[in-house]
Amino acid sequence: MMNFSSDNVTGVAPEIMAALVAANDSTAISYGNDEYTQQLEVKFSELFETDVTVFPVATGSAANALALSVMTPPFGAIYCHAESHINLDECGAPEFYTGGAKLVTLPGSHGKISADDLAIALKKAGAGVVHHVQPAAVSITQATEAGTVYKVDEIQRIAGVTRTHNLSLHMDGARFANAVVSLGCKPADITWGSGVDVLSFGATKNGAMAAEAVVFFKRELAETFAFRRKRSGHLFSKMRFLSAQLEAYITDNLWLKNAIHANKMAAKLADGLTSLPGVKLCHPVEINEIFIQLPEAVIQKLLAEGFQFYRWDGEDSTTLRLVTAFNTKEEDVNAFIKIAASDSAEAVKITVV
Amino acid sequence: MMNFSSDNVTGVAPEIMAALVAANDSTAISYGNDEYTQQLEVKFSELFETDVTVFPVATGSAANALALSVMTPPFGAIYCHAESHINLDECGAPEFYTGGAKLVTLPGSHGKISADDLAIALKKAGAGVVHHVQPAAVSITQATEAGTVYKVDEIQRIAGVTRTHNLSLHMDGARFANAVVSLGCKPADITWGSGVDVLSFGATKNGAMAAEAVVFFKRELAETFAFRRKRSGHLFSKMRFLSAQLEAYITDNLWLKNAIHANKMAAKLADGLTSLPGVKLCHPVEINEIFIQLPEAVIQKLLAEGFQFYRWDGEDSTTLRLVTAFNTKEEDVNAFIKIAASDSAEAVKITVV
Amino acid sequence: MMNFSSDNVTGVAPEIMAALVAANDSTAISYGNDEYTQQLEVKFSELFETDVTVFPVATGSAANALALSVMTPPFGAIYCHAESHINLDECGAPEFYTGGAKLVTLPGSHGKISADDLAIALKKAGAGVVHHVQPAAVSITQATEAGTVYKVDEIQRIAGVTRTHNLSLHMDGARFANAVVSLGCKPADITWGSGVDVLSFGATKNGAMAAEAVVFFKRELAETFAFRRKRSGHLFSKMRFLSAQLEAYITDNLWLKNAIHANKMAAKLADGLTSLPGVKLCHPVEINEIFIQLPEAVIQKLLAEGFQFYRWDGEDSTTLRLVTAFNTKEEDVNAFIKIAASDSAEAVKITVV
Amino acid sequence: MMNFSSDNVTGVAPEIMAALVAANDSTAISYGNDEYTQQLEVKFSELFETDVTVFPVATGSAANALALSVMTPPFGAIYCHAESHINLDECGAPEFYTGGAKLVTLPGSHGKISADDLAIALKKAGAGVVHHVQPAAVSITQATEAGTVYKVDEIQRIAGVTRTHNLSLHMDGARFANAVVSLGCKPADITWGSGVDVLSFGATKNGAMAAEAVVFFKRELAETFAFRRKRSGHLFSKMRFLSAQLEAYITDNLWLKNAIHANKMAAKLADGLTSLPGVKLCHPVEINEIFIQLPEAVIQKLLAEGFQFYRWDGEDSTTLRLVTAFNTKEEDVNAFIKIAASDSAEAVKITVV
Repeated sequence: MMNFSSDNVTGVAPEIMAALVAANDSTAISYGNDEYTQQLEVKFSELFETDVTVFPVATGSAANALALSVMTPPFGAIYCHAESHINLDECGAPEFYTGGAKLVTLPGSHGKISADDLAIALKKAGAGVVHHVQPAAVSITQATEAGTVYKVDEIQRIAGVTRTHNLSLHMDGARFANAVVSLGCKPADITWGSGVDVLSFGATKNGAMAAEAVVFFKRELAETFAFRRKRSGHLFSKMRFLSAQLEAYITDNLWLKNAIHANKMAAKLADGLTSLPGVKLCHPVEINEIFIQLPEAVIQKLLAEGFQFYRWDGEDSTTLRLVTAFNTKEEDVNAFIKIAASDSAEAVKITVV
Repeated sequence: MMNFSSDNVTGVAPEIMAALVAANDSTAISYGNDEYTQQLEVKFSELFETDVTVFPVATGSAANALALSVMTPPFGAIYCHAESHINLDECGAPEFYTGGAKLVTLPGSHGKISADDLAIALKKAGAGVVHHVQPAAVSITQATEAGTVYKVDEIQRIAGVTRTHNLSLHMDGARFANAVVSLGCKPADITWGSGVDVLSFGATKNGAMAAEAVVFFKRELAETFAFRRKRSGHLFSKMRFLSAQLEAYITDNLWLKNAIHANKMAAKLADGLTSLPGVKLCHPVEINEIFIQLPEAVIQKLLAEGFQFYRWDGEDSTTLRLVTAFNTKEEDVNAFIKIAASDSAEAVKITVV
Repeated sequence: MMNFSSDNVTGVAPEIMAALVAANDSTAISYGNDEYTQQLEVKFSELFETDVTVFPVATGSAANALALSVMTPPFGAIYCHAESHINLDECGAPEFYTGGAKLVTLPGSHGKISADDLAIALKKAGAGVVHHVQPAAVSITQATEAGTVYKVDEIQRIAGVTRTHNLSLHMDGARFANAVVSLGCKPADITWGSGVDVLSFGATKNGAMAAEAVVFFKRELAETFAFRRKRSGHLFSKMRFLSAQLEAYITDNLWLKNAIHANKMAAKLADGLTSLPGVKLCHPVEINEIFIQLPEAVIQKLLAEGFQFYRWDGEDSTTLRLVTAFNTKEEDVNAFIKIAASDSAEAVKITVV
Repeated sequence: MMNFSSDNVTGVAPEIMAALVAANDSTAISYGNDEYTQQLEVKFSELFETDVTVFPVATGSAANALALSVMTPPFGAIYCHAESHINLDECGAPEFYTGGAKLVTLPGSHGKISADDLAIALKKAGAGVVHHVQPAAVSITQATEAGTVYKVDEIQRIAGVTRTHNLSLHMDGARFANAVVSLGCKPADITWGSGVDVLSFGATKNGAMAAEAVVFFKRELAETFAFRRKRSGHLFSKMRFLSAQLEAYITDNLWLKNAIHANKMAAKLADGLTSLPGVKLCHPVEINEIFIQLPEAVIQKLLAEGFQFYRWDGEDSTTLRLVTAFNTKEEDVNAFIKIAASDSAEAVKITVV
């Protein structure tokens, strides 16, 4: 169980599994005309304190790619961070779903793009000039792929640029819950309240079996979504089982409770590691992910003890990504720190000698 | 509960729900490197009595569209029945996944294409001529959208034509279990044993929550499948929950037991209805679907009693599709017949007077 | 030269070649900002007696596919005749350019669809239902692939149906000039005056080297065209050489003069052949194409004399397509008839004996 | 005529216009089965001293996008320079034609990528890992967009990397003639002789009206090209007029003569300018393009005198791109230098005072 590889190695939160079992008690109209699904918009509208349009899908890649597909023409450009999941880890799903739009990447420390860099890129983009792909959308990840979080004002400044250039703003919220908890804000604050048009609201990494919600704050963008979801094979016949997951996820603040635990475990783990010799954090630890350099000897000892995690920059890298989850056990965190600490001392000794 | 609209209004078979709960007991490597998924190929190879490559996906549209995407170039033609699900009911998913290949439709009574019609169409197709889309694949549905079943020799004759023209042969098996039960054959007999290259092996309609398997008998066709599945958003991070459904589905012949019941209920219902006056079957009843014309007065009475079903050719049609499922209650079938019988008499009286 | 295979075996009309030479006298701004191209909209607006937006492209396939690409979403349906060029002879170009839209085919005698058949098809299409491709556009060919012409009222009735269903209406006018001449109407009468939104205005078959114009009567449809043309590689850097062809084509009624000659030659040829024994016209001869059954012995004699033409329904068919062009020589037509007549007599003798 | 904006503002070389007129003397089989087109492969095979497969198209964007479409699956990655034409100036044509493949950009001084940077990028690309687009092809531009030329050994080192990783190597040769002249090499030396698989052989910028050839050195890559060309609307019915241009272009070394002149004019212009005060070359001048910083006062004077050119990095940039062509007049070059020199002196005076 001492698996810090990813939050998607976890199973399903008990409340969500219970909801799946409960949803299995009768027949239900298929393809989303069931009561569970019909209720989702009401409940998400309450959660976000504004009227939203919501579409359940089963994977984050589907949520992102479908969301982007309604935000750009095939000859459009989507601006995103060079290290973003949509750019690096979806095997070209955005390109597929958009009919060949281009992801234009921006640099940025700790996984975040800046409004200034975006503005500069857009100024040079050649809007209206037929030779160039046309700026259409911006996608930011909240929390980021570096385990950091955009502050409210950072999002607002980015949204200011997108408005100026008449672009749509997408938020990849695979770890949206962890970001909300980290910022101590309301969901509205970092979405429509700051200018976000469409949110991929993740649940799978934080306790669902396979469920994400595409949430539209700008409703006209949602017009063709249902057709696009169907023709991509993401309309589930027994849709209630997606919706039941999402409903359980946002009921009684389960999503926040799960994220609070995951973030807390990461903070504890980071605290325990950063004071050790030879250890260096790559990014601030703001959610449930830690990017950290450890001495190779420490890594070896942890592996020998059965801990699992990814080396982040290739097989021979000593930079690790450590991810905690809604059900990470505090004892595992403590054990990790203890072994790292003992070994770290050793490692340093060896190096010194 | 008296819902004969579709087999996808049902919930999840208890054995499969139990498997989902059981699969939730620990962490597991994500994206299909878990033990459940690793075991699937072994188990499906046993089931089909040959080495197969298997990919779990969550929907039938995804299974079909992904399967077809590896069987045709973008400038290819896929031959299928005019009434086939891939042609009529997937909002263009095959066109999307293949990058714009064309579905060329064939007529055929009772939902089946014939080898002869296929051969004639292929002769006129212009293979090798640059102006025309190039014949690449044939897709047949087993059981068909008309509730009928291709016999072994019918498949073999079609496969003979596809071989002659160097085409791939796909089988949409959304109701594959019902077909196997109907024919009393082995899965191999109507798939690779008869020349089928790729099968969309359905489970959702027959008791799964959301699980289908794309089964490759011609393994070289599978080479790019994993990439295509990922970039279409159909690679599940918590894949074990798809695989666990499929495993439970084929364990202890659950898939056949479920289909036996569904087929039996349909046969009983058809038997009870066809003897009534003013009633006419549109197709032979060979699986769990009945296409039947009933007097409008009978339909009204059934609706008033709370039965649910689809009028098949538009809102004012008196042709119904009645679908039974793995959990259809015999008492509901009896009730349906009883009401139809009482009303049928009345209806006829009214008509006669 | 006795080539009746197609109107695209011809070279370039002298007036158009002269225009190309004339356009070569200086430098010109590239990519369509030259004076030739800038003038086209004025001249086409005069020709069509309404303000139009015009885009030159080099091939008919490009004109059609690009036109259709702005008239349908990727999940849309384009209704067309089963024998239409866009359906049979463009290797799937419409599917490629639209991102996978579906061509839904309609039957119809002599190459024409009827408003009634269209209305029936649309009623069953499932507009608004997520499972089905969504009706988006209708495309008719004027003149048709059968060498016939839609009358004004036929177009108006079709346009009435498209308006009712909120669809766009495209006209493939590869032989538009021949149709205008045949009907003795004004260009406006059979286009925007009858409800056509976008016209592929052909010139190549009627004397240009490689030039077609996509003419938008509904200007909002043109908004993204320039980007789509560029990204499909159909924006010419030395655009003036396309525009100069089109300008010469419509100057001094060259396009009509050329079509008048071609139509006249076809009429003469048809007149000469239809009275012969064993000969049967397949379609009325209304433009510069003749579809005609001839005795095999006649065909053999014509081939032996060096005449060229296509057998229309396969290699062993005795149905021929004979196409005349702007530069068909009357002496060749006479020779064709003479040989057919002599041989026809012989052929019949042989048959009789 | 004093237009240094681009080599595509020029008209058609007289030899090529003469060839077009000559090709217009009779009928010809359409769609490339004419004698001109049939001869092209023979002539290009002689030119490249190896058996090649050749396809004429009309634009460079079509040549590049079609070439790339056979070198990558839709989930593939094409590595190219960040400033390459395929990445910046084709409105996403490669993405469109490949069905959504991704252009992965590399930096590199003077418009050239290095084998080392390519190797590093490929090592991190995640080949075989399903989450990432899969390395499929490399595209280099010869001559580059910076007006420089890859040396033979530079190409060979890049090709070494592509072979190691089993990728295809494409060369965008929009200004191939200028590169060959600059290097004083044979066409074979910098193409198949150095590991290039497919070449976009440009003619339009160097004297053709609208003609490029896609030349395949690895013939198996050409298998589907004809279908892809047709379905993208780039198969010309009167193909002889493309082929006649290409034939004339390579006959009697016209292509080299034209490039020699263009390169010479650029060298002369660069020589005349670089000695002036306040002037700085951005890149070595190796072909017919000069990227140069001039004082704003000089630029103003040149504009006032009627010279035309592009400011390269935006409207207020003092970096110019100056392009010469096959028909640039030496007197215009002299005039340009003279005005720049006079004004430069003035400009400096003004600045100094």
